[in-house]
Order: sequence, then structure tokens, then C-alpha cells
Amino acid sequence: MHLHLLDRLRRLRIVLASASPRRREILLGLGLVFDVVPSRFAEDLDKAAFDGPAGYVAETSRRKAHEVADRLRAERREVDLIVSADTIVVKDGAILEKPADAAHAKRMLQLLNNAAHTVLTAVTLVVPRTGATRCFVEETHVDFADLPEVEMDAYIGTGEPFDKAGGYGIQGAAAPFVRGVRGCYFNVVGFPSHQFSRELVALVAAGQLLL
Amino acid sequence: MHLHLLDRLRRLRIVLASASPRRREILLGLGLVFDVVPSRFAEDLDKAAFDGPAGYVAETSRRKAHEVADRLRAERREVDLIVSADTIVVKDGAILEKPADAAHAKRMLQLLNNAAHTVLTAVTLVVPRTGATRCFVEETHVDFADLPEVEMDAYIGTGEPFDKAGGYGIQGAAAPFVRGVRGCYFNVVGFPSHQFSRELVALVAAGQLLL
Repeated sequence: MHLHLLDRLRRLRIVLASASPRRREILLGLGLVFDVVPSRFAEDLDKAAFDGPAGYVAETSRRKAHEVADRLRAERREVDLIVSADTIVVKDGAILEKPADAAHAKRMLQLLNNAAHTVLTAVTLVVPRTGATRCFVEETHVDFADLPEVEMDAYIGTGEPFDKAGGYGIQGAAAPFVRGVRGCYFNVVGFPSHQFSRELVALVAAGQLLL
Repeated sequence: MHLHLLDRLRRLRIVLASASPRRREILLGLGLVFDVVPSRFAEDLDKAAFDGPAGYVAETSRRKAHEVADRLRAERREVDLIVSADTIVVKDGAILEKPADAAHAKRMLQLLNNAAHTVLTAVTLVVPRTGATRCFVEETHVDFADLPEVEMDAYIGTGEPFDKAGGYGIQGAAAPFVRGVRGCYFNVVGFPSHQFSRELVALVAAGQLLL
């Protein structure tokens, strides 16, 4: 969607407010040039204070973006666009984030096993100069396979679950664990390419992001 | 699914009968160790001779695997497993393969634009020692975004369409062109991880592939 604007977009000073190597890779795949400034927001919002998972993940993503925006402004560092994201897994209404240890990862995999769950990623775009902010939440359904326990243990042994919401990564050794998805695949990895590209083009079209 | 067998699977002499760098990458991601021996099968079957696209793509994949199996046998080269794949895009019953030139790529993108299509990948597994063969076809639905013409032209300008069935690659610069998928994402890239992993485990469980 933004490909025809790419030459001009690549001249912008874009900041990705996330330490996730997977998000960096997806954004690089979109052809964008950016710096990484991981947010220091504590990600400790009270889930019970939100009507549902979408509100929670959206607010976490907004806080991440604004923490970085505030910090860069304090440092007098001028940027054109700040992009943040937060991803959660939702199963039967419960929000799963990163597992704390192997036993926690095992409980998560058992909960997800042989059933469907949803992955929600919220993305926030902030244009410091115009004050424009856009936040959206993308939802993808994931159909998780029926794994024997020995397979879960082998997966936990790879160490992969520990930095991933829900305890698995669809793009790694757990790729075969997913029968299929309904919606944006990249959203499950952690960054919804299609909708992000649309929002980026919309910001430009609205005159809120100047190329 | 095969992760708990990985140590033993990695000792097998596996051959991937495909030159596709994307298939190689997915298979590497599954943790497997293999050699690449691209098939020389001409991929010129008469589409009209098949009841539908699934039969056509399955037969192409079988021919690819057997061409390599025959060649390796003639060379007295012993292998444990040969894996081939073929991918097609189907839109309104018509089979789209790789575009011949820029004008052809443009017609394909116009055909796919703002609509749904399906991607079919057939995979064949051949175990030369036991004669066991498995072939399956995996289908994924793709919801393609509404692209302005300038965006199609920009994409064709990247050169990406030319080695890809249907004229686009979901994992590259065209990632934002896909609103969502229904089914296995990796199948759209060219190799259905989940079903392949199941079939691999099933071959072992059936005693047709000895570890």
C-alpha cells in the first residue's frame, strides 16, 4: 500500500519503540528505515480496569509510544514518526503474556492445545510535529494443533517460549503447531503489516505526516 | 509435531527437490538438515487433463519428486527421504503460475486485486528404501487488498513478481497487500509446515521411515 511512497518514506526519521527483533524484521521487510528506541514503559496496567483485552493492549501500546515520544522530546531529539506495538494472546477471555518460567510456559501450551485462540496486536503511530496519533488493534484467530506432551517439553527445551506472548512463536520451531490462522499472519508474529501500511498511507493522505 | 524426534530426524539424508529459497528457509526453520537437488521435471503437464487444480498441482509435485528419486538412484546415491513441492494460485478456477513478463504480472495483480483467491501447495514425500510415498495438497484462502495502480507498478518495479506463482510473494514487499489469510500461512509462502510435519511423523509412526 505504501510502496509507491517508499522513496519519500525512507527519508523520514522513524523510531520503532520496541525491542522485539521480530517487529524490527517485519518493518525492515516493509522497506522502511528506522532507529530502534525500546520503550521503558513498565507494561503493568491493571487488566481489570479495562472492559476487555483490546482496550488493555491498545492502552499499553499508546503508553509505550508516548513514553518514547516524551523522552525524545526531553532529549531535544527530533523525529518524524514513532511506532509502537504490543501483542497479547487471548484464550477464553484470559490474557496471556510472556511466561515467567518453564512450568508457566507448559501451562500456557496446555491451555492453547488443540483449540482456537486469538492474538491481538495494538499499534500506535505518533507524529510529534503535528501531534497526530493513530492507534488500532488487529485481531487474528489461531487454530492450534493437538500436541503430545513430549512435543511441548521439546519445545520448551528450545528456550523459545520465554520472550513470546502466549509462550510460542508462530515463525519459529512452533510453526508446525499452528493448523492455520484467520486474519493477518504478521499480526501473530507481532506486527500487522497490512493495517500498518494502510494507516501510514492514511496519515500522509490526511496531511498529518509530511513527506 | 516432529520436534521431539528432531535429533534423530537430523541424522537422515534428506533431499529437498526444489530450488526455491523460500522452501529451503522454511525447512531450515523446522530444524531439518538436508541437501538441495532441484528437480529437472519440465512442469509442463496439460492442465486440461485434470479434473481440477488440486490434481494438477499434486501430479506436478509427484513428478518433481520422482524425477529426483530416479536420478539419484541412477547415480547410486543413497538418500532416506526426498521432499518436493509445487505451488499454484487459483482465481475463479484459473491456475496462475509465474508471470512471463511485467505486463503478465500486471494482469495477474489486476485479477487478484480486491478479492479472494486460493493458494494450493502440493508436497510429495518419497522414501526410496521402503518405496513409501505420500502426497498431499494444502489450500489457503487469501484476501487480497484493493491496490491503486501506482502501487502495482511500484511492486512490479521491485522485480519480485517474476519468480512467484500468482505474481506476488506474501513474505516480501507485498506483505501489506494481504488483508488476511484463512489456513496455513506457510503454505502461501510455498511450504505447508504444519501438514508436512504431521506427515513426517506419520511416516515414522507407520514404520515407513526408519530413524
